[in-house]
Amino acid sequence: MSKIEARLAELGLTLPEATAPIANYVPFTVSGKIVYVSGQVPRKDGKIFPTGRVGEQVSVEEAKTAARDCMLSIIAHARTAAGGDLDKVARVLRVTGYVHSASSFGDQPSVINGASDLAVELFGEAGRHARSAVGVASLPAGAAVEVEAILELA
Amino acid sequence: MSKIEARLAELGLTLPEATAPIANYVPFTVSGKIVYVSGQVPRKDGKIFPTGRVGEQVSVEEAKTAARDCMLSIIAHARTAAGGDLDKVARVLRVTGYVHSASSFGDQPSVINGASDLAVELFGEAGRHARSAVGVASLPAGAAVEVEAILELA
Amino acid sequence: MSKIEARLAELGLTLPEATAPIANYVPFTVSGKIVYVSGQVPRKDGKIFPTGRVGEQVSVEEAKTAARDCMLSIIAHARTAAGGDLDKVARVLRVTGYVHSASSFGDQPSVINGASDLAVELFGEAGRHARSAVGVASLPAGAAVEVEAILELA
Repeated sequence: MSKIEARLAELGLTLPEATAPIANYVPFTVSGKIVYVSGQVPRKDGKIFPTGRVGEQVSVEEAKTAARDCMLSIIAHARTAAGGDLDKVARVLRVTGYVHSASSFGDQPSVINGASDLAVELFGEAGRHARSAVGVASLPAGAAVEVEAILELA
Repeated sequence: MSKIEARLAELGLTLPEATAPIANYVPFTVSGKIVYVSGQVPRKDGKIFPTGRVGEQVSVEEAKTAARDCMLSIIAHARTAAGGDLDKVARVLRVTGYVHSASSFGDQPSVINGASDLAVELFGEAGRHARSAVGVASLPAGAAVEVEAILELA
Repeated sequence: MSKIEARLAELGLTLPEATAPIANYVPFTVSGKIVYVSGQVPRKDGKIFPTGRVGEQVSVEEAKTAARDCMLSIIAHARTAAGGDLDKVARVLRVTGYVHSASSFGDQPSVINGASDLAVELFGEAGRHARSAVGVASLPAGAAVEVEAILELA
């Protein structure tokens, strides 16, 4: 078993199925060693969940879990990009986290820590990335959070 | 005539003039094979149009057409980046679509499909890209949509 | 003294201390020649400042100065990425500027010019970059502006 798969098992995590979007785009593209992963939204039973503004309809803790789920989807796509072997992911380079926010909400960093923490739990130092966290007016189907990433293959 | 120019003609499309911004930035930069294209907003008769929140002042269909116009501007700049030959655009790697949205609007994907669909109509499989679509509080001059892209040259 | 350090001195500018975030991410990552710098928010006496919506609580001029401060932080991190020698920064490739905006505010470009202008004052033609400027619902701790960048090393 690969080192990262073993770490996933240790953390009790299962990667979601890496499904393709039903539109003219793809979950990821690769240029040289660089993998660009599409923005991921959290899902439950196939539906986008949680939805709503963080700080109002959705708590910071719920949104943080949702951001973690987004990172899990990113990792699922990264596995496909790496030919099925997560040990060939050399580095998480950049993460952008969009948080569905009311204008008065300013704790986007805590929410996106859900994604960042998982990257580091799985990849260690190689999981540390450049990051931006911003609060947006809305997201697809009202999703509470959306996370995209750029990774480097070995 | 180049293959992609022929395809543009088939689709009845003319690329807009690739004008430079009147500020300290440029329409695109190139690093190796990678082209970073600045965020494009839709224009009509030289003015930013349509403006307003999608789902309120602007319909999804109007915004989708606007996103298509943004992609047309991206392609115009990509042609310049490729030394005038669109056949040297190897791949659309990533598209980020910002939709001027009310908090209750959640159909950013349909809007940004206007940009994604054009990329695939023109470039075929090479037009399929990683994508994020988000809803933002506002955009330059109230534009309904803004689209940026990263492309790969051959 | 390096050429760019001399230019900083000419402009009367001092780079802020390049501090690391207190979370599982880093100020920048490097892949080959490409440097991805995390989103920077403006600070005063160690606190995020100014805060609030531009066009309401914060004026365009104040926000422009804040965007310039964000670029100064980006340059501080770029110096570290370049091994302490800013003359090894070959190019600013891309800048994304997020402006904390009311829905009616549309002058994000003037705000982000604060960042773009400084890049060009320091690096000359090499400072000209691809750019997107968008208006967001909110930002970390209510910051008025956040700026991220991608640079190329020599």
